[in-house]
Amino acid sequence: MLSKNKIKLIQSLNRKKERDESGFFLVEGNKMVEEALRSEYQIETLVCTAQFANQHPEIRSKAKELIEADRDSIQKASLLQNPQEALAIVMQPELNTPELNLNTDLCLALDFIQDPGNLGTILRIADWFGINTVICSENTVDVFNPKVVQASMGAIFRIKTNYTNLESFLLKASKNQIPIYGTFMDGNNIYTEPLTKNGIVVLGNEGNGISESTSRLVTRRISIPTFSTNPNKAESLNVAIAASICCSEFRRR
Amino acid sequence: MLSKNKIKLIQSLNRKKERDESGFFLVEGNKMVEEALRSEYQIETLVCTAQFANQHPEIRSKAKELIEADRDSIQKASLLQNPQEALAIVMQPELNTPELNLNTDLCLALDFIQDPGNLGTILRIADWFGINTVICSENTVDVFNPKVVQASMGAIFRIKTNYTNLESFLLKASKNQIPIYGTFMDGNNIYTEPLTKNGIVVLGNEGNGISESTSRLVTRRISIPTFSTNPNKAESLNVAIAASICCSEFRRR
Repeated sequence: MLSKNKIKLIQSLNRKKERDESGFFLVEGNKMVEEALRSEYQIETLVCTAQFANQHPEIRSKAKELIEADRDSIQKASLLQNPQEALAIVMQPELNTPELNLNTDLCLALDFIQDPGNLGTILRIADWFGINTVICSENTVDVFNPKVVQASMGAIFRIKTNYTNLESFLLKASKNQIPIYGTFMDGNNIYTEPLTKNGIVVLGNEGNGISESTSRLVTRRISIPTFSTNPNKAESLNVAIAASICCSEFRRR
Repeated sequence: MLSKNKIKLIQSLNRKKERDESGFFLVEGNKMVEEALRSEYQIETLVCTAQFANQHPEIRSKAKELIEADRDSIQKASLLQNPQEALAIVMQPELNTPELNLNTDLCLALDFIQDPGNLGTILRIADWFGINTVICSENTVDVFNPKVVQASMGAIFRIKTNYTNLESFLLKASKNQIPIYGTFMDGNNIYTEPLTKNGIVVLGNEGNGISESTSRLVTRRISIPTFSTNPNKAESLNVAIAASICCSEFRRR
């Protein structure tokens, strides 16, 4: 049985304040819950149908609490429009500055990404391209926002993220001669520019791009050229699309 | 003054049936309305603040009807959470099979894309990469859905779209020796595969990929390889992300 209090707790995880206070975040849907079960993350409560529980015997050892409920009850608790057979209340891991060797590794740095769908999609892209670390500015949307979690399609369980003062992070990197790339309208053509195997790729805010204070620390300004010949052509690409093209270019070479 | 009837008409444009019956679609927000004003599209009704009207004197000749309203009234009519100073009721253009020369042109073909955000984003990508035509299967989400329009960021006014029986379209193209590309998990590595300047790139449904009947007509199976070394790695990329990487690869060469 899914108690009223449990439903209240589940729904409270839509709000950052309550996520921070409880230390939990919400994972919804069969595939996402399966990803949580495969991960190292600690599952506080797993709510699922009897059928889902039978199909996943590992639940009993992985989840601290198992609540069997029918689809209607799950629907009542869910934040999704079309909930499925399972959802999980998961412990937030501690976000530490990841052990990152920027002399060999490539990482993404996000400067004030506001849209949760964009952040989730960027995590999914990083995951695909084998980029294990995403550093977020302190004003970037919370990675445990349910919309970020769902859009990441499980990448949230694999990618190391941290929130930090982006300027300090970049300043330290630049002192160590780490290449710092950033996307700008007037940067060098990414398709012809030499790209290193290691370094940091900074991606900027949806509306305003990379902030002025951050852009001063970018040492290699790159740009994704448009191929449009229309006089009213588009001004920009969505930040997740820009991220995917950057990751593709860095990795294919 | 924004009458109750006008508010009702505006909100009815969220539904395909009512869009089809009226022949209109909805465009919201300052930038999007500016794009509509710059386009060839016919604006039936433009609702905006006095300030917006003053800043855009061309409105009076471009819009059949101009209604000045304050922000609160626009808020009442709007489908957006954060409406701005303008929205427009725009005439749907007739969707014809575009004049497409597949011996020289590249186009995208969408096989049952369901998510309006994905379709809008794909239009924006096509626009950026100078791909002027997007052919949609009949079961692909309606291009005049307000969420598609908004996600396209104005690309909807520049890209030619049409809905058609995708199999017939591809069959005809294949008889004319037009290369038909499609993305599959087990296709040839897109980074090393020879790509032609012309042809069709088929993109498949979010959950199921390219349908079986369509995939039989694909002559060049391509794949975006993952660079992840994680044993639990991601199964797939979002379709708009796959579209962006395909377009980038076709165009950069």
